[in-house]
Amino acid sequence: MGYQEFTIEGRNAVIEAYRSGKTIDKLFILDGCQDGPVMTIKREAKKQNTIVKFVTKERLDQMSDTGKHQGVIAYAAAYEYAQVEDILQAAGEKGEPPFLFLLDNIEDPHNLGAIIRTANLAGAHGVIIPKNRAVGLTAVVARTSAGALNYTPVAKVTNLSKTIEDLKKEGIWFVCADMDGTRMYDLDLKGPIGLVIGSEGEGVGRLVKEKCDFTAAIPMKGDIDSLNASVAAGVLAYEIVRQRGN
Amino acid sequence: MGYQEFTIEGRNAVIEAYRSGKTIDKLFILDGCQDGPVMTIKREAKKQNTIVKFVTKERLDQMSDTGKHQGVIAYAAAYEYAQVEDILQAAGEKGEPPFLFLLDNIEDPHNLGAIIRTANLAGAHGVIIPKNRAVGLTAVVARTSAGALNYTPVAKVTNLSKTIEDLKKEGIWFVCADMDGTRMYDLDLKGPIGLVIGSEGEGVGRLVKEKCDFTAAIPMKGDIDSLNASVAAGVLAYEIVRQRGN
Repeated sequence: MGYQEFTIEGRNAVIEAYRSGKTIDKLFILDGCQDGPVMTIKREAKKQNTIVKFVTKERLDQMSDTGKHQGVIAYAAAYEYAQVEDILQAAGEKGEPPFLFLLDNIEDPHNLGAIIRTANLAGAHGVIIPKNRAVGLTAVVARTSAGALNYTPVAKVTNLSKTIEDLKKEGIWFVCADMDGTRMYDLDLKGPIGLVIGSEGEGVGRLVKEKCDFTAAIPMKGDIDSLNASVAAGVLAYEIVRQRGN
Repeated sequence: MGYQEFTIEGRNAVIEAYRSGKTIDKLFILDGCQDGPVMTIKREAKKQNTIVKFVTKERLDQMSDTGKHQGVIAYAAAYEYAQVEDILQAAGEKGEPPFLFLLDNIEDPHNLGAIIRTANLAGAHGVIIPKNRAVGLTAVVARTSAGALNYTPVAKVTNLSKTIEDLKKEGIWFVCADMDGTRMYDLDLKGPIGLVIGSEGEGVGRLVKEKCDFTAAIPMKGDIDSLNASVAAGVLAYEIVRQRGN
């Protein structure tokens, strides 16, 4: 991947970036902005010797990728992808059985951001995404992750089924989300686990699905076909949290 | 509310509208489009004598509110808001204890759509939103609801705390989502229930919270503050589904 400049937009996202120890190279604040969150950001900037520029709304609008800068844009080093090994190591350091999210071609950056956010709060040790087609760690993903991208490592792999195969040798079980599966409440989802979530339109791909140990279904009691991908990921992740009971 | 013309955009949304028996007044299809979903839409249109016009991509782009028409735009009567009584009656007709979603000022139409989608699939009988500030049933909401808006009634009320008070007299319990609450697994969420979800930034308002019988917390094991509102709604709704066990 290598490094690139990266913008972090919005007050909470910038505060979270500082709190997580990320290096902010440069900070742009709307001239005259004096409210609480902005004062917090200014304090953090002073502590860390960040270069601060006070600019007009027009300038911020122009710089913004997301259109939602809330008066604050920071330039930081790009989010670096982690290695799968780093994720396993993080689990080991916490003394917890690994809990991974694997995303099979999530294309919507809002969904990817929301899923990384969920992974962080559900206590997962990392997220694995495939190199092809799927969306990467863009500014929109960073923003919708609400800061989770600063804490939860994301690894990018060439071939998701191959990665699943390798991780099975480490004793990790894989459960994929699919309507045709067993009701999630009836599965044993404890222990080292990888939760595989498919794309909105197509679900989990056949090759990836074949590698999974079980297929978990969320009970569907309504009239339409499926939940939003990030909602489905949240519901399944929290069934795992419940069963782990920690 | 009264009726207005309303556009439904995207293949799945239009197919769902037909399946649910909604009256489509007029249908615009990208000229030359022949794939499976479009053929299904054409068949439905023929069955129901819908006026079909084949138009250019430019024309569709111009007509589109969401920018994601996928070659199909339908004109239908606007989604009408239901009454709270209709929702209770729907529960009664199914012989089920009422299960309602109440949304305290959800402002993002994507979140509102995703939550109505979740309400449908979790088997809730309806969604109640406040008149002020909150977003209404726009084209973006309809599209992100993935057709759920055709099945799940949405009522709009002047005062959410007043509505909660009234519904308590009908024997409904109210649980509000808040980080400071009891772990959701430790609460009894069976029986007639109203799930109250707050806005992204502010959570559930104080006045509404005071009316609730319990406060349910989703376990947070990570570093950041909160889940996306539609993910939180999904996680809580499916804890209710699990406890209801039907």
